[in-house]
Amino acid sequence: MREYASMNKDELLKELELVRKEYDEFKARGLSLDMSRGKPGADQLNLSNGLFHTLTHDDYCDDMGIDCRNYGGIDGIKEAKEMFAELLEIEPDEVIIGGNSSLALMFDNIASNMTHGVHDGQPWATQGGVKFLCPSPGYDRHFSICKYMHITMIPIKMTPDGPDMDEVERLAQTDPMIKGIWCVPKYSNPDGIVYSDETVRRIAYLKPAASDFRVYWDNAYFIHHIDGEIARIPNILRLCKEAGNEDMPLIFCSFSKVTFPGSAISCLAASKTNIEYIKKRFSIQMVGPDKLNQLRHVRFLKNAQGVIEHMNKHAAILKPKFDAVDTILRERLGGLGIINWKRPSGGYFISVFVKKGCAKRVVELCKNAGVKLTAAGATYPYGYDPDDSNIRIAPTYPGTDELKKACELFCICTKLAALEKLTKEFR
Amino acid sequence: MREYASMNKDELLKELELVRKEYDEFKARGLSLDMSRGKPGADQLNLSNGLFHTLTHDDYCDDMGIDCRNYGGIDGIKEAKEMFAELLEIEPDEVIIGGNSSLALMFDNIASNMTHGVHDGQPWATQGGVKFLCPSPGYDRHFSICKYMHITMIPIKMTPDGPDMDEVERLAQTDPMIKGIWCVPKYSNPDGIVYSDETVRRIAYLKPAASDFRVYWDNAYFIHHIDGEIARIPNILRLCKEAGNEDMPLIFCSFSKVTFPGSAISCLAASKTNIEYIKKRFSIQMVGPDKLNQLRHVRFLKNAQGVIEHMNKHAAILKPKFDAVDTILRERLGGLGIINWKRPSGGYFISVFVKKGCAKRVVELCKNAGVKLTAAGATYPYGYDPDDSNIRIAPTYPGTDELKKACELFCICTKLAALEKLTKEFR
Repeated sequence: MREYASMNKDELLKELELVRKEYDEFKARGLSLDMSRGKPGADQLNLSNGLFHTLTHDDYCDDMGIDCRNYGGIDGIKEAKEMFAELLEIEPDEVIIGGNSSLALMFDNIASNMTHGVHDGQPWATQGGVKFLCPSPGYDRHFSICKYMHITMIPIKMTPDGPDMDEVERLAQTDPMIKGIWCVPKYSNPDGIVYSDETVRRIAYLKPAASDFRVYWDNAYFIHHIDGEIARIPNILRLCKEAGNEDMPLIFCSFSKVTFPGSAISCLAASKTNIEYIKKRFSIQMVGPDKLNQLRHVRFLKNAQGVIEHMNKHAAILKPKFDAVDTILRERLGGLGIINWKRPSGGYFISVFVKKGCAKRVVELCKNAGVKLTAAGATYPYGYDPDDSNIRIAPTYPGTDELKKACELFCICTKLAALEKLTKEFR
Repeated sequence: MREYASMNKDELLKELELVRKEYDEFKARGLSLDMSRGKPGADQLNLSNGLFHTLTHDDYCDDMGIDCRNYGGIDGIKEAKEMFAELLEIEPDEVIIGGNSSLALMFDNIASNMTHGVHDGQPWATQGGVKFLCPSPGYDRHFSICKYMHITMIPIKMTPDGPDMDEVERLAQTDPMIKGIWCVPKYSNPDGIVYSDETVRRIAYLKPAASDFRVYWDNAYFIHHIDGEIARIPNILRLCKEAGNEDMPLIFCSFSKVTFPGSAISCLAASKTNIEYIKKRFSIQMVGPDKLNQLRHVRFLKNAQGVIEHMNKHAAILKPKFDAVDTILRERLGGLGIINWKRPSGGYFISVFVKKGCAKRVVELCKNAGVKLTAAGATYPYGYDPDDSNIRIAPTYPGTDELKKACELFCICTKLAALEKLTKEFR
């Protein structure tokens, strides 16, 4: 295929006419598909139906003999802590098991720092103009928390190795109002980037100007590979200890995309000092977590090895979907010079960069033809993509046939938006 | 039995010697019992073991056909909302179903008001010196939240009809820094008091000086009777609507003491305006609640009538325990003039008032002989009971035999503390 950039006006207009016709035909088919959220498909959920049949009227106590039906146990049951500790290669007493949402754990940690400061230091809310570093594109819900909490977001460019560490160091090490950074270190949302060893090391060895600086290490996809092998990244907690920054990282992960997204268990890992501090707040906030659901997960997944094997089954379902998107994008758009992407080896998204100034239009065109995508810009702080170029494709929820259809449409819309822009530029 | 107050010094010293001997004998038995928390006993938990067997690999969708395993549904599933709405006699869209802890819902609501104000008004945290009215004795965890949030607590005397409403009105209607009141309107913690119709009406018709005043209506024991019939109180939300205070009450309840305390579901009920505002925060905070656990509860309890029938089974287990405590207190301490209490008709506690200045000592004596009680003072703001008189007895967790033993000991300790004090006063 010829690059659009090499076409003259007539050729572009002719192509525009062709593509518009394709678009109209697609529109007439009345699709109704959703590629907007990183939501597992029903076939993936079915992998965990065994959860329904684990606990019984004579199996509800943990290894310590604690009746998990009753109140208590603020930091989770022993077995669940051990399971996450093994997966994260840390100690069980560096772990708290939370409810069904790691996002809630992040939100609560920031809410705590806003009103009570980090370890009872000066509350962030009274320091005036607290800021966070936001590697972008990134996870929209991280940015929503910042916006909600009136935390100023500073976008940081993502590189193939993770956040631009020169920028991170320059800013975090000079501005004491910068209190945190959001990191999705493995199969990042949305780019699927795995932070390099060097990036992780530089984060661990940061010397932030703020003594109450925190790294929000959202390891959401810590075991969520697609291609048969889990990428490895250095152990941030261990490195931070080495660097004398033991209390800096707060590690979050969950089984939301391991078992049932709505009904899984989450995990917060951090230094023992952090864990003790967080437990104090928890003991004011609630009487205890849902221990039965923790036990249910332990019984079903058995141990860390069981979790890994379970994730291989997810990968077997996901790989064909990611491959399908990748193939269609290559076949339909390869060589046109209007899109860039990299198929990730894990995570839940394919992040594409369409022609600058076209992302919003592509999303709009898709929507008008029945395919919902994540809003353009959502992957940037304040919903503002300066290039209006990034689009996050979530290929996991639709069935493969529907996914292919949606992807075909996406390609048509990407061409159409580019052609509309190019032909306008000729005027 | 003769009142201690009518005894002379010699008689008291003789009695002291006798009681001390009884105490030492008890101590030698090496008891280890816990009457400190309102925790259901194992026999109560067994009533809900059917929960383990409700959902299956082909029953996980709600009435709307929503796959409860997946993400979404910020305010809970339809059936769960309907069930709580029927029990509370309000509309399903005046309800949000939460996770396993209504305390977490209360904490979060106050945390929200601290940083974001009521309905985006001025944050409580920046108004300086926010205060809450705290009917006392009351629930220690309410007071812990206030203390944690640096909210000044003003104790309000409890009467047999609920909080002293003259005081509540006088304070709330003149001081704009008073932002809230904690109410446990039915079978109050710890006294078991049921607010009178007049009390509820006066609360609903309050004209608080603060426009951002909120009534935290912790209806923790809304269906938790002991004697076969659920006490009725007026519908606070309806009355507040009548009074033009529609947004003032926030109603909390849960199934924690209906099914499994650690793994039940909670409910927040309020005006539609409040519900919409709270949902906005929730949508930043998490992706959704544990819908499967909601569905599990709906399948097991079936409907409001099913819940009521289930609560009758709890009552059948609890009544003998409350009766045992009441009987032992009457038999051992009746006529001595050193204790007051009223057997409640619901809830989880028996609240006793021992001789002024003796509560701490009674709790200490019990502890030293192996019976753990709630710390004296815990039922008052800042843990300070001005009379050092109130003790909360939680009779639900121990088996009946153990409960009786613990109660015998409690009576001995109550006498011993009173005699120690009386004989000292003679010196």
